[in-house]
Amino acid sequence: MRERKKKMKTTGGGVCAPQGFSAAGVHAGLKKNGKKDMALIYSRLPAVSAGVYTTNVVKAWCVRRNQEITAKDRPVRAVIVNSGCANACTGEEGERNNILTAEKTAALLGVQADEVLTGSTGVIGRQLPVDTMIHGASLLTEALTDGDAAALDAASAIMTTDTKAKTTARSVRIGGTEVRIGAMVKGSGMIHPNMATMLCYITTDVSIAKPLLQKALKDAIVPSFNMISVDGDTSTNDMAVMMANGAACNPMIETEDADYAVFAEAVRDITLELAREMVRDGEGATKLIEVRVHGAATHQDAVKMAKSVITSELVKTMFFGEDANFGRIACAAGYSGVRFDPARMSIRFISKAGEISMLEDGTALPFDEEKALAIMREEEITVDIGIREGEAEAVAWGSDLSHEYVSINGDYRS
Amino acid sequence: MRERKKKMKTTGGGVCAPQGFSAAGVHAGLKKNGKKDMALIYSRLPAVSAGVYTTNVVKAWCVRRNQEITAKDRPVRAVIVNSGCANACTGEEGERNNILTAEKTAALLGVQADEVLTGSTGVIGRQLPVDTMIHGASLLTEALTDGDAAALDAASAIMTTDTKAKTTARSVRIGGTEVRIGAMVKGSGMIHPNMATMLCYITTDVSIAKPLLQKALKDAIVPSFNMISVDGDTSTNDMAVMMANGAACNPMIETEDADYAVFAEAVRDITLELAREMVRDGEGATKLIEVRVHGAATHQDAVKMAKSVITSELVKTMFFGEDANFGRIACAAGYSGVRFDPARMSIRFISKAGEISMLEDGTALPFDEEKALAIMREEEITVDIGIREGEAEAVAWGSDLSHEYVSINGDYRS
Repeated sequence: MRERKKKMKTTGGGVCAPQGFSAAGVHAGLKKNGKKDMALIYSRLPAVSAGVYTTNVVKAWCVRRNQEITAKDRPVRAVIVNSGCANACTGEEGERNNILTAEKTAALLGVQADEVLTGSTGVIGRQLPVDTMIHGASLLTEALTDGDAAALDAASAIMTTDTKAKTTARSVRIGGTEVRIGAMVKGSGMIHPNMATMLCYITTDVSIAKPLLQKALKDAIVPSFNMISVDGDTSTNDMAVMMANGAACNPMIETEDADYAVFAEAVRDITLELAREMVRDGEGATKLIEVRVHGAATHQDAVKMAKSVITSELVKTMFFGEDANFGRIACAAGYSGVRFDPARMSIRFISKAGEISMLEDGTALPFDEEKALAIMREEEITVDIGIREGEAEAVAWGSDLSHEYVSINGDYRS
Repeated sequence: MRERKKKMKTTGGGVCAPQGFSAAGVHAGLKKNGKKDMALIYSRLPAVSAGVYTTNVVKAWCVRRNQEITAKDRPVRAVIVNSGCANACTGEEGERNNILTAEKTAALLGVQADEVLTGSTGVIGRQLPVDTMIHGASLLTEALTDGDAAALDAASAIMTTDTKAKTTARSVRIGGTEVRIGAMVKGSGMIHPNMATMLCYITTDVSIAKPLLQKALKDAIVPSFNMISVDGDTSTNDMAVMMANGAACNPMIETEDADYAVFAEAVRDITLELAREMVRDGEGATKLIEVRVHGAATHQDAVKMAKSVITSELVKTMFFGEDANFGRIACAAGYSGVRFDPARMSIRFISKAGEISMLEDGTALPFDEEKALAIMREEEITVDIGIREGEAEAVAWGSDLSHEYVSINGDYRS
């Protein structure tokens, strides 16, 4: 494990880090404030695609169309994304607008319409202004370029209430060849386990068989994006889409061998980093809370309990208030649906300022309020919950719940 | 139905409305601010009991002990309740303190220890100050009296962040005899479907068989307390306890006949009123939101969807912000776990200021922003969701999510 880690390097370049990818981000006119609102990622070579999508029954048109495209064994070349309008609950007109955007972009790039994926985020129930979208597609294809700046432009253009662009990249060696993986995400609101309004685009120049690309993506999302919670809402537009264009010319990965393991670990490393970044930049977030559950009978139990605690509004407001009211954690663990003996439960708070035991064998311990406050004042706090029922464990991340979250979401549309 | 309703009267008197019950509420010293913090309800005759308790795995000592007592076919005489300390996660010392409180109260009342139920609400993980509790028990037994004022004192003493005492009573005729039912509840925080930190005590002078009392209580809670949500947290201390002392001397209700129906409807009427009051007085609540789901394939589906919508933080903040961003409702319905065709979904907002259709056949409609704002500005708003999959329907109630909620819960313990 350590050996592999050493071979993995974090690099700049975002979605443009892998060879053969260029990107752009522009202001097309969807956002009234003049900020960038459309992004394009383009692969100069045909790319194998993979996708993981929202579990919400109500799906935006981009989600529905991408699901069909990435399920097929046909190459893709680009993804065009807009912020400011979700294009969900928009009926047939919304479907037409989504297709038109893909067709126009494809024509501009000289590729097939079904080689262009789409992504949308923003207000639900508003029609996509298709003229603005087509104007944006022209601007984007003209602006397409390689390098850090282009990747950052694209990452900025997909932001909604995010306060900063979130992008990263890795370099690994596979069969003696350098392979690069780059990614950009947006999150901020509606962030919850099982995909959120979260858009994630990952590019890579690896040469890989399609089923393995899909597996690497899915396995990376389970312990990362599926284990974070800002507010408990799972959106209509969530997607994580990956394109692999083979430009690295590594020996093609066709089985779950050591090469696959190196690649999959790098993808997971990227999603874990970006998942935490997403929480840190959650709407109104002032803290990153990590919940570790150990001693669970099954992994599923550990996941269920960690998610229950990190999703509790009372736990989130407690961290915002920097109040070591750990009983709320015991309570949220207790209603998680996991069967356990409360008399075996322990709860500890851990941060840079130290570590404190609040509960042992189901019984509250006397504790030093000042030490507890010092621990709670840190920006990153770990809640460690043990239930001594077995060996399984899980980790989830979430933000606190602040006044600002209420302000942002009380007045989002306007 | 109308005939029955006419026979039901809302009266004063709260838990003292039924014959043979007295009550008291005092300041014993658990709350630092001098407010009432202990309550006692006493029946001069042995009473049949019923109870419904939290589903949380982590249960307070009062919940555990009451569960045992109300499960037995033995009479009870009193319930003593404290606010300010939940007595959960307190180990063996907590168990002893709970028993000691019941024993001391029983001695003061001249009844058996296992005829005295207990209830606690407040901070989790702190030991019950048993000397204060015993002092309180003395004050309460001395203060026991009948009538409105005593019932209000008791209802006030169980409040935590509630802003007003919640109490009501009904009178119905059963077999020519007047039967009375009185109740008090506290709610405010941690309020969520499937019982919340909600304490509910119902007294009645009806003569009824124990299994039917339990059934009437359980059936009343399902469409009322189990359909409300302030913040999605289910507490360690929730309980609804009922005592029936037979003082009305009606022909004893022993089967599910017309008499039972009259009685059960009155109990349901009380719990519905108090559930709505609880939401209206939820922590930081500025509005009462009613979510009606109709056209569901099954009742369970309708319940699931209504709860999903009323629990969404994004929906709650939207109402606080008076912003008709109905897409969040479509989204929360979509991730509820109910299978339905989004192309059949409709959403309407209804309040005193009028009615407006936002979504029809899954497609957003153009709407008058001013009219929508006028509707959203009301204190009570109904969200009407139709999915045209079947005939089933359900109603849930919740509060909005305000800045004040965050303030209250960021700083609850201190």
